Amino acid sequence: MSNTVGQVIRCKAAVAWEAGKPLVIEEVEVAPPQKMEVRVKILYTSLCHTDVYFWEAKGQNPVFPRILGHEAGGIVESVGEGVTDLAPGDHVLPVFTGECKECAHCKSEESNMCDLLRINTDRGVMIHDQKSRFSIKGKPIFHFVGTSTFSEYTVVHVGCLAKINPLAPLDKVCVLSCGISTGFGATVNVAKPKKGSTVAVFGLGAVGLAVSAAAEGARVSGASRIIGVDLIPDRFEQAKKFGVTEFVNPKDHKKPIQEVIAEMTNGGVDRSVECTGNTEAMISAFECVHDGWGVAVLVGVPHKDAVFKTHPVNFLNERTLKGTFFGNYKPRSDIPAVVEKYMNKELEVEKFITHQVPFSEINKAFDYMLKGEGIRCIIKMEE
Amino acid sequence: MSNTVGQVIRCKAAVAWEAGKPLVIEEVEVAPPQKMEVRVKILYTSLCHTDVYFWEAKGQNPVFPRILGHEAGGIVESVGEGVTDLAPGDHVLPVFTGECKECAHCKSEESNMCDLLRINTDRGVMIHDQKSRFSIKGKPIFHFVGTSTFSEYTVVHVGCLAKINPLAPLDKVCVLSCGISTGFGATVNVAKPKKGSTVAVFGLGAVGLAVSAAAEGARVSGASRIIGVDLIPDRFEQAKKFGVTEFVNPKDHKKPIQEVIAEMTNGGVDRSVECTGNTEAMISAFECVHDGWGVAVLVGVPHKDAVFKTHPVNFLNERTLKGTFFGNYKPRSDIPAVVEKYMNKELEVEKFITHQVPFSEINKAFDYMLKGEGIRCIIKMEE
Repeated sequence: MSNTVGQVIRCKAAVAWEAGKPLVIEEVEVAPPQKMEVRVKILYTSLCHTDVYFWEAKGQNPVFPRILGHEAGGIVESVGEGVTDLAPGDHVLPVFTGECKECAHCKSEESNMCDLLRINTDRGVMIHDQKSRFSIKGKPIFHFVGTSTFSEYTVVHVGCLAKINPLAPLDKVCVLSCGISTGFGATVNVAKPKKGSTVAVFGLGAVGLAVSAAAEGARVSGASRIIGVDLIPDRFEQAKKFGVTEFVNPKDHKKPIQEVIAEMTNGGVDRSVECTGNTEAMISAFECVHDGWGVAVLVGVPHKDAVFKTHPVNFLNERTLKGTFFGNYKPRSDIPAVVEKYMNKELEVEKFITHQVPFSEINKAFDYMLKGEGIRCIIKMEE
Repeated sequence: MSNTVGQVIRCKAAVAWEAGKPLVIEEVEVAPPQKMEVRVKILYTSLCHTDVYFWEAKGQNPVFPRILGHEAGGIVESVGEGVTDLAPGDHVLPVFTGECKECAHCKSEESNMCDLLRINTDRGVMIHDQKSRFSIKGKPIFHFVGTSTFSEYTVVHVGCLAKINPLAPLDKVCVLSCGISTGFGATVNVAKPKKGSTVAVFGLGAVGLAVSAAAEGARVSGASRIIGVDLIPDRFEQAKKFGVTEFVNPKDHKKPIQEVIAEMTNGGVDRSVECTGNTEAMISAFECVHDGWGVAVLVGVPHKDAVFKTHPVNFLNERTLKGTFFGNYKPRSDIPAVVEKYMNKELEVEKFITHQVPFSEINKAFDYMLKGEGIRCIIKMEE
């Protein structure tokens, strides 16, 4: 057993002191895990658009100083009272939303929207005692979505940790703890295209990587045509890597893109997945699916004043519209199997990883994302 | 073989000469069935709201003179060229929409929206030669939705006829050819409530009987709570017969009814079925289902300018919205099994039948429906 158990650990963390300012690597104190909590040594983390979004804090409730980060892989250092599912040495992926296994959502076969541990972006403390486990010289530093993986050590509720195969390389599978699972799950768990079907994905390589992962899900499902929809023509080349076979740009057409897609596909695609969060794209994604059997899935998070509008006959003609949160994966129950899909070479992860930086250069990862360079940048904690 | 085969049959039919005027029992000539057509002797028919709607022809394309009627049971008199599935003497239910068994919809496991024989309310002729099989002294009388069952004999495309168990009493199972199947199928085929679940049905006993049938579907599925939503309090008593356990009237509440239902059900019902076609009711029906797993199904036909609106987050929180047409039943493949459900006493049909009149008094059936009296009036063709 590590001699750090029950002790405060001093380690490096990248602290966001204020909105939009470069993170600063600081020495922080990480308190021991409390009831139902686990302290995790982070080995690799990656930067997701959501980190940038809450770092910019434009229109969001600013919570600073804060330790961001939620896509990561690590090893359990110690566990708090009541934790029986995990032990020191276990390999884990922290997840921004949780699974208590006791609420109505966790008991439902269909939902992953745990009442206790559902994502809360405003909360900067642990739910057990409403306090932070991070401090600098006694001054608390806030948590982010219960994970705060931009730190060599972090404290996470046991319900937000997926215990994974210890043979899985953490520098690769760390990206399965958020974006890839969201997009991949949207397709394979919710849209469920059949082999040989047609799938449209809206928002190729836009913010986040969910859409590439959605296309990967369509490829893995054996879709015969995967139609990428994006306003930026350059993105088609990249999208081909994820199985996209055709590209349409709404700017190239005078008629609504749902009509263009219907003409390309003899009445509509079998499935569509919308990853931009733009209301017009959501409407197009719904209306471009075939009557009789088409299913559209919304992944992209909309503006808080957004309104989805359509003629109800589009539903009555036997179209289905669904939304998903984290690809409908239950973090603890389902994510270990996603890691196994990577281990079995069903799901390709490497092509999503375009950059790697040492922890000391974490701000470079922000630069890459802000410039739209690459997809995922892995941040290696130990140098 | 009947000596009428290949001959014109002279028989009685109730002709709608013009919009809104009482039907007139006339002697009509019914031509022999052509390619892929079947001539059927109708024994029982019933009046559905859709007949009244096209008889009133308010805002609809008026097609007169016309023989209405589409809920019925009869016996095959003769078959036209190419018909191999049916033979004289077979018991059949004519259906307002068809199943060609060859188009993409018919080949899909999910759809019943046949490309060839999908309902067409404007067409007053047979698709084979664009002519009517009905005439009076040589002057054509138009068909209605391919069935025209308000006639002692009618001609129907083979794809619009369900061959049923000859032991099934046609004076009862005739009502399974439209409204009951629509509502019952919306629940059992599309909403699919699990045993013990909560279901809301919108529009108790409003136009048509679909909503009572939707409630019956929830009862048969073993729902533990069936919440009826209607603006007219008197309807609760009748709805209890169909398993409705609770009643809410939006007029009794200041807050939106979806919020009232969410409070009654700890976050929302598991399933909802909307049968009114009113846009506000559709929105309420969607927003009253539980996040994580709720499914809402639209049945009611909306106004042509209707717009369905909601915040997209209602989808992202893992709610599903679907629509259905004829309860997702394929007329030929699936309706025979619905009749068997009646024969096995799983589905109760008698409680939907409140009146019976002889064919000569068919206009009384219109009066009952216009006054909102009862649910279904059976019209007996032979007196």
